[in-house]
Amino acid sequence: MATDRKKEKTQHVKPTGIRKGRFAKDMDQLFAKYNASISVDKRLYEEDIAGSLAHVRMLRKQEIIPARDARIIEKGLQEVKRDLEEGKIGLREDLEDVHINIEEALREKVGDVAGKLHTARSRNDQVVLDLRLYVKKKIALVRKDLLNLLYVLTDKAEDTKRIILPGYTHLQRAQPVRLGHHLMAYFLMFRRDWERLGDALKRCDEMPLGSAALAGTTFPIDREHVAKELGFSSVSSNTMDAVSDRDFAVEFIFCAGMVMMHLSRLAEELILWSSSEFGYCRLPDSFCSGSSIMPQKKNPDACELIRGKTGRVYGNLMAILTTLKALPLTYNKDLQEDKEPLFDSVDTIESSVKIMAAMLPDIEFDPERMLAAASDRSLAATDLADRLVRSGVPFRDAHSRLGAAIREGGTNGLGEGGLEMHIPSPEEMVEARRHRGGTALRSVEDQIGHARSFLKDNGFVSAATRRSKGRQSKI
Amino acid sequence: MATDRKKEKTQHVKPTGIRKGRFAKDMDQLFAKYNASISVDKRLYEEDIAGSLAHVRMLRKQEIIPARDARIIEKGLQEVKRDLEEGKIGLREDLEDVHINIEEALREKVGDVAGKLHTARSRNDQVVLDLRLYVKKKIALVRKDLLNLLYVLTDKAEDTKRIILPGYTHLQRAQPVRLGHHLMAYFLMFRRDWERLGDALKRCDEMPLGSAALAGTTFPIDREHVAKELGFSSVSSNTMDAVSDRDFAVEFIFCAGMVMMHLSRLAEELILWSSSEFGYCRLPDSFCSGSSIMPQKKNPDACELIRGKTGRVYGNLMAILTTLKALPLTYNKDLQEDKEPLFDSVDTIESSVKIMAAMLPDIEFDPERMLAAASDRSLAATDLADRLVRSGVPFRDAHSRLGAAIREGGTNGLGEGGLEMHIPSPEEMVEARRHRGGTALRSVEDQIGHARSFLKDNGFVSAATRRSKGRQSKI
Amino acid sequence: MATDRKKEKTQHVKPTGIRKGRFAKDMDQLFAKYNASISVDKRLYEEDIAGSLAHVRMLRKQEIIPARDARIIEKGLQEVKRDLEEGKIGLREDLEDVHINIEEALREKVGDVAGKLHTARSRNDQVVLDLRLYVKKKIALVRKDLLNLLYVLTDKAEDTKRIILPGYTHLQRAQPVRLGHHLMAYFLMFRRDWERLGDALKRCDEMPLGSAALAGTTFPIDREHVAKELGFSSVSSNTMDAVSDRDFAVEFIFCAGMVMMHLSRLAEELILWSSSEFGYCRLPDSFCSGSSIMPQKKNPDACELIRGKTGRVYGNLMAILTTLKALPLTYNKDLQEDKEPLFDSVDTIESSVKIMAAMLPDIEFDPERMLAAASDRSLAATDLADRLVRSGVPFRDAHSRLGAAIREGGTNGLGEGGLEMHIPSPEEMVEARRHRGGTALRSVEDQIGHARSFLKDNGFVSAATRRSKGRQSKI
Amino acid sequence: MATDRKKEKTQHVKPTGIRKGRFAKDMDQLFAKYNASISVDKRLYEEDIAGSLAHVRMLRKQEIIPARDARIIEKGLQEVKRDLEEGKIGLREDLEDVHINIEEALREKVGDVAGKLHTARSRNDQVVLDLRLYVKKKIALVRKDLLNLLYVLTDKAEDTKRIILPGYTHLQRAQPVRLGHHLMAYFLMFRRDWERLGDALKRCDEMPLGSAALAGTTFPIDREHVAKELGFSSVSSNTMDAVSDRDFAVEFIFCAGMVMMHLSRLAEELILWSSSEFGYCRLPDSFCSGSSIMPQKKNPDACELIRGKTGRVYGNLMAILTTLKALPLTYNKDLQEDKEPLFDSVDTIESSVKIMAAMLPDIEFDPERMLAAASDRSLAATDLADRLVRSGVPFRDAHSRLGAAIREGGTNGLGEGGLEMHIPSPEEMVEARRHRGGTALRSVEDQIGHARSFLKDNGFVSAATRRSKGRQSKI
Repeated sequence: MATDRKKEKTQHVKPTGIRKGRFAKDMDQLFAKYNASISVDKRLYEEDIAGSLAHVRMLRKQEIIPARDARIIEKGLQEVKRDLEEGKIGLREDLEDVHINIEEALREKVGDVAGKLHTARSRNDQVVLDLRLYVKKKIALVRKDLLNLLYVLTDKAEDTKRIILPGYTHLQRAQPVRLGHHLMAYFLMFRRDWERLGDALKRCDEMPLGSAALAGTTFPIDREHVAKELGFSSVSSNTMDAVSDRDFAVEFIFCAGMVMMHLSRLAEELILWSSSEFGYCRLPDSFCSGSSIMPQKKNPDACELIRGKTGRVYGNLMAILTTLKALPLTYNKDLQEDKEPLFDSVDTIESSVKIMAAMLPDIEFDPERMLAAASDRSLAATDLADRLVRSGVPFRDAHSRLGAAIREGGTNGLGEGGLEMHIPSPEEMVEARRHRGGTALRSVEDQIGHARSFLKDNGFVSAATRRSKGRQSKI
Repeated sequence: MATDRKKEKTQHVKPTGIRKGRFAKDMDQLFAKYNASISVDKRLYEEDIAGSLAHVRMLRKQEIIPARDARIIEKGLQEVKRDLEEGKIGLREDLEDVHINIEEALREKVGDVAGKLHTARSRNDQVVLDLRLYVKKKIALVRKDLLNLLYVLTDKAEDTKRIILPGYTHLQRAQPVRLGHHLMAYFLMFRRDWERLGDALKRCDEMPLGSAALAGTTFPIDREHVAKELGFSSVSSNTMDAVSDRDFAVEFIFCAGMVMMHLSRLAEELILWSSSEFGYCRLPDSFCSGSSIMPQKKNPDACELIRGKTGRVYGNLMAILTTLKALPLTYNKDLQEDKEPLFDSVDTIESSVKIMAAMLPDIEFDPERMLAAASDRSLAATDLADRLVRSGVPFRDAHSRLGAAIREGGTNGLGEGGLEMHIPSPEEMVEARRHRGGTALRSVEDQIGHARSFLKDNGFVSAATRRSKGRQSKI
Repeated sequence: MATDRKKEKTQHVKPTGIRKGRFAKDMDQLFAKYNASISVDKRLYEEDIAGSLAHVRMLRKQEIIPARDARIIEKGLQEVKRDLEEGKIGLREDLEDVHINIEEALREKVGDVAGKLHTARSRNDQVVLDLRLYVKKKIALVRKDLLNLLYVLTDKAEDTKRIILPGYTHLQRAQPVRLGHHLMAYFLMFRRDWERLGDALKRCDEMPLGSAALAGTTFPIDREHVAKELGFSSVSSNTMDAVSDRDFAVEFIFCAGMVMMHLSRLAEELILWSSSEFGYCRLPDSFCSGSSIMPQKKNPDACELIRGKTGRVYGNLMAILTTLKALPLTYNKDLQEDKEPLFDSVDTIESSVKIMAAMLPDIEFDPERMLAAASDRSLAATDLADRLVRSGVPFRDAHSRLGAAIREGGTNGLGEGGLEMHIPSPEEMVEARRHRGGTALRSVEDQIGHARSFLKDNGFVSAATRRSKGRQSKI
Repeated sequence: MATDRKKEKTQHVKPTGIRKGRFAKDMDQLFAKYNASISVDKRLYEEDIAGSLAHVRMLRKQEIIPARDARIIEKGLQEVKRDLEEGKIGLREDLEDVHINIEEALREKVGDVAGKLHTARSRNDQVVLDLRLYVKKKIALVRKDLLNLLYVLTDKAEDTKRIILPGYTHLQRAQPVRLGHHLMAYFLMFRRDWERLGDALKRCDEMPLGSAALAGTTFPIDREHVAKELGFSSVSSNTMDAVSDRDFAVEFIFCAGMVMMHLSRLAEELILWSSSEFGYCRLPDSFCSGSSIMPQKKNPDACELIRGKTGRVYGNLMAILTTLKALPLTYNKDLQEDKEPLFDSVDTIESSVKIMAAMLPDIEFDPERMLAAASDRSLAATDLADRLVRSGVPFRDAHSRLGAAIREGGTNGLGEGGLEMHIPSPEEMVEARRHRGGTALRSVEDQIGHARSFLKDNGFVSAATRRSKGRQSKI
């Protein structure tokens, strides 16, 4: 082992790029790998090139570098991008990060003039620019996915608005509700997520380039020009904040955590409902898997994975918050650890939201079984108590009398013996709750109507149009 | 031990309130304590009474209960409130929660008519109403505290805008910056927190009453009336979501976590700066403490506690997220666990923000020591490289040449030997960065000007006015 | 507000105790409250006095202070302890922490000689001594509670070893198992918790006194003597580690988190099983509560609270880990934040374990309903496949054939049509699994036997003895 | 978008393996990717093959499958292993997981007889076996790495035992200590980590195979035989616990979190110490990096990354704890989410511990600068107070008098004016602390001696031997 350690210590990598001047010694090989982020940040290549293009155009406009050089660099960057997209060149794992990779690729295309691209720019503002471009893009995509999920939920609520099942508190049957009403509760959760991501977007939408390493640059840059070119609505207001701020990434991950929390609640219900004991629904085969040893099994894997993956996004949130705790200004290398929790959270909610939206339409509910459960006479207790209240009995006394009747006679105690009241049907009970937000048919239809307006206002076609194109409704 | 266990099991508490009807057996004593939330939720008493008052007025208006009964209840509630505030009565630990406490206190005032207050309402919508009122109130207060902190930071930035210190990356001196510029970076962090809390407020501002247990109520309630009376801008749209949603509490705690993260960064810097090694500032005695064994010590306790308490708010966030994971609809008792992480987060940021704001004005910076550190010749390397670039050397080459010069001759290598360039002073360097967000005096003054406008737009008086009232500026 | 802030700043508390020498200014009132830990650390008073007693005895033995003074202090400490226990004196919120409180109480008893108690000691080693004594005590108590829970589980497993229910994977019925077998799975989880806490105890069992502020003391102390007197098995080996180490607290909280995780799994199953849909058990009334609006409800509150409180212990773990991250040596005030997550975790598992142990014996299972569910013919598929395998069909093919039969004919497809095999009864199936750890009666009885031996080895009386004392078995 | 969603839904993957029988429909393509774990669990291939080899040998010994078939399978598995190692075959991303990959590779080698390997086994016990083998292996490796780090720390402590620097509390200079003493504090942290991992190993060291899906198997297996072959010291005691238990993975991740926490504290100190302000040490070039814009910078990247990566391991811990919360028995697909936090934690501490151990020997400390800081006269205050105490002044009074002297005369106030005492030198002060665990030379040498014994007892050669082989000591 002693020998091994010695060997590790003596294996160094050649100094490249920015190490060339200052450092007498090469980088320890182990550390070089630890330090490299290319395996992670390679997915920023598009943003990196877009940022460099905007930067070089500004350098030319401001005459910071000669127009001829700028044009060479610009053309070179576009070629590098095309080559990467067409797979002609790849990102090299031996070059530390995506920025150096692209700079090297550019150098191979255009020679030493490539070095002028880094004028009036540092990796510190470059990396945060790339990251903000990325988060902006992903917020837009995730919000679109959420709109699609909202659309699917609205459709499903429409389809199931006449199905009645027991609403639960404490996982005990409480009062009958419409399934469409139940599903619209999830609509609201995901709409809040959509809104929250919209708020997060505002704080992400600031262009940091020009902050350079931490203090800005001595070159006569035009930051607004870069911002406009890249579609940012404002430029950052303080160079030191700009290079050390990762709030936008934390906030995105938090929003992702909330999405997963909501998905986990829906997934939990689908798992319960598809059990033999509930028997409320059948999940589509295409989102389930079988057992290696029990051929009869059909397991709700998609739902379980969604539920399980909630943990990883919570973990990502804790990771980035911990990393940021007590970091002094400005850039510290710790910030390199922002990418993996961010990227993993993006991947997790992108796929999780898509899968839920793809699975929901094909879930088949069992209206008979739901209605049977909702017909449990004890679920009428509240309505009977309300009736006693209307006849003048104080609420708490009505409550006691109903409770005693059930304790003595079970659910039969409600209709007979001491009380002898008409037991309302599930339908009667849900229809009695017709205020705003209630579970009566009209109230549910109102909710669906508002949902359709919301979707329309945000660019989704009306359900009627789409459904007429032939989607078969499943209940 | 066997006996002990038996004893525990046989000690029961008498069935009270809602247990009276249904339950044959009393509650296990151990569990009664476990189940009780009064020690925690007692701080909601104002909100609970306010909610009940609005509810009973609506019941009267809608003629759900007789006007006479409503007036008795209303008067009784006001007396209960006054008695609580004057300490004439207290909240009893033997009554499960704040809601039952107030209901019992009302019953003692007005007798059995108190029971009518619970008409068309459940504890499920009542508790979430109280919590939303509470969070709305606290968001407003914390945002005010944040404005005050922003105000203090702006003043301090104004006071220190001529002090020059080294800006750091990787805790290595990098380039000189103005202290006012450095402080304005924190201004931006806390302004984002202020904005984020404003966004959270929107999602909190929904009136849930009328959702009852989970499905709404059969009484002809007027939810908009209650919302208006309580100052909510909208009513909740789905009864099932309304009683199971705690997103607004999670979002508040997340915002609090971000505030603490930012405070921890500032606290870390103050701890570093007040060390003998940095010697950049002296913290006010009134926010420090001494040592029991080392009489010479002056410890930055307030800063350390702020930094340390970051952990507890992160922990609160993790706690509530975990609790909510995979909870099926609607209300589950798990939700009782929402209050402590929320209340603790409120307390922690209220005091932490206030303490930072109270401490900052009295911090005394040491301009000489800061300037001496900023005069480190190596900090000029970037500007020298920029100058080489302007003379046509590609950036990367300029970088290599400067690095080599330093490696060979130390910081002296910059002015003599191979390069022989004029070494700019710290003042020259900061003034060379005069773009938007830069550290030149004008750029910093611009930032301060925008900050003052922001504060004025949000109701804070101008600094000039306040400072003329006699506050002594410390630098 | 400006005035308010000014006022806050000018309200100071008088310098007391260790502030008297060094500080020109009083402590800011807001900060004094922020800084104080007395409301939290008061529960360490026993440990603090015990530690001081051992310390003063050592000071006397080593002739560091005169024997007469030592005796006065010792007697004074014992009186303070008695006074506190009898409520004659209380801990004062205006004195920063429990240590200063006790020192002041001692001073009131014995005068200025009290000041000699702090010879060769600092608050830094004193507080960590108190905390280690506390954690050692609590580990012992929690382990006892866990043994009791293990005892109860073993009894319940014995009582239910003949009940057969479906074992679940993916919440889908998979194969029949004995309920006693199912419960013994939890026995193993909690036994691991008991072991893990035993391992944690080893690392907690080190006596830190003598480390003083951070570097030890110049007095000729005898650390082994103090350790022996306080029941520690060793003394700490490095003063700097001793005052900055909180690993023992983190490890305890982690162990508590594992206990809660296991309890949350059991609680989840009890919640599922007591739903109308499963109908597998009735929870005792004394651990449930009712609904304010639905008189028929019996809610599994104890189980839900246990499940919900899992979040708070996870949160505590995250809190203390975050606080400790990147703290330089040695003591930093951040460490004051160790107590609340620790104390809250202690309280939560103490009550949660006790409640589960008190509730379990009175849970009534429904053998008929469980057996009916286990008689689902599809649960025989694995055994039928095994039989095909025995007749030479490769496992994967057997699996395919069974699956196809079920898909075509439902569960009837197993007995008829293509396969025509005898469908084994649930009893036959569980009895066919008689290897070590299996669900056959003998295997379950073996597990119970080992459990009884384990409990006996750890000081628990045999169940037979206890049960003959009259506990009525419930199944 | 509507079209896109439709398309997604209609793209299915062909049913393979265990889906062949039961499922009418193919798996949704999106879900197939979501469900697949091959990109993650591929690193378990060695463990999977080792487990299968032990299993098939047992099947042969027990005559559950014919000896001839067993031999064919065994040989086939060995060939698959060799082919994988030699890169002749690869793991296919289109096959769900590593288990199916290897089964398919075996089938290609030996044909349908491969199907017999799955006799008396399920993926549920197979996956947990693989994971336990993996964790056992990794615990052993990480403990070895920790021993190496302990070795390096001991050497460095030996080298630096004569260097005196200020010990800090609250990041304020407190009392002089020996650098070797300071480093030995870290020795103790990492030794606790080593012990804790040893305890975790005990709970990991249980062989789960034979538990099958959840209830055991009907075949006459010999579990002890498999355990012995695979090097496990016991077999699991309950089939249901065996397939649903992931405690060993959580415990490993917790231990990893503690290692990172300790590393983050050391990293923080190295970052501070290598700042210009402290100037206590120079980090080796080979573990630092430069700046893209500031040629003079030498950044402590390795230390910052170690500190930053603490967050990701904390996040992993939170992730797996969240995933496990409230999971009912037995296997649920959520458990698939155990691998990534585990593997990422393994990778992070493996590299982090190695890097710290590789970097430490080459850190160059600056004894002059440290001594100069330790010579701050105020650091003598405690010793002067102790001297007053020895002359009969109660400790608290001595404390006040010293404090007042410093307040009035600064550090000069100690030697002159009211006190006129001899100010001890740093050397005198550290030598005055010669009790067990103290900072006197002899006490530090004792610590080093114990460390060497510990290392020797655990198989590490003595430092003397190694150092005589020519390693140049750096101070």
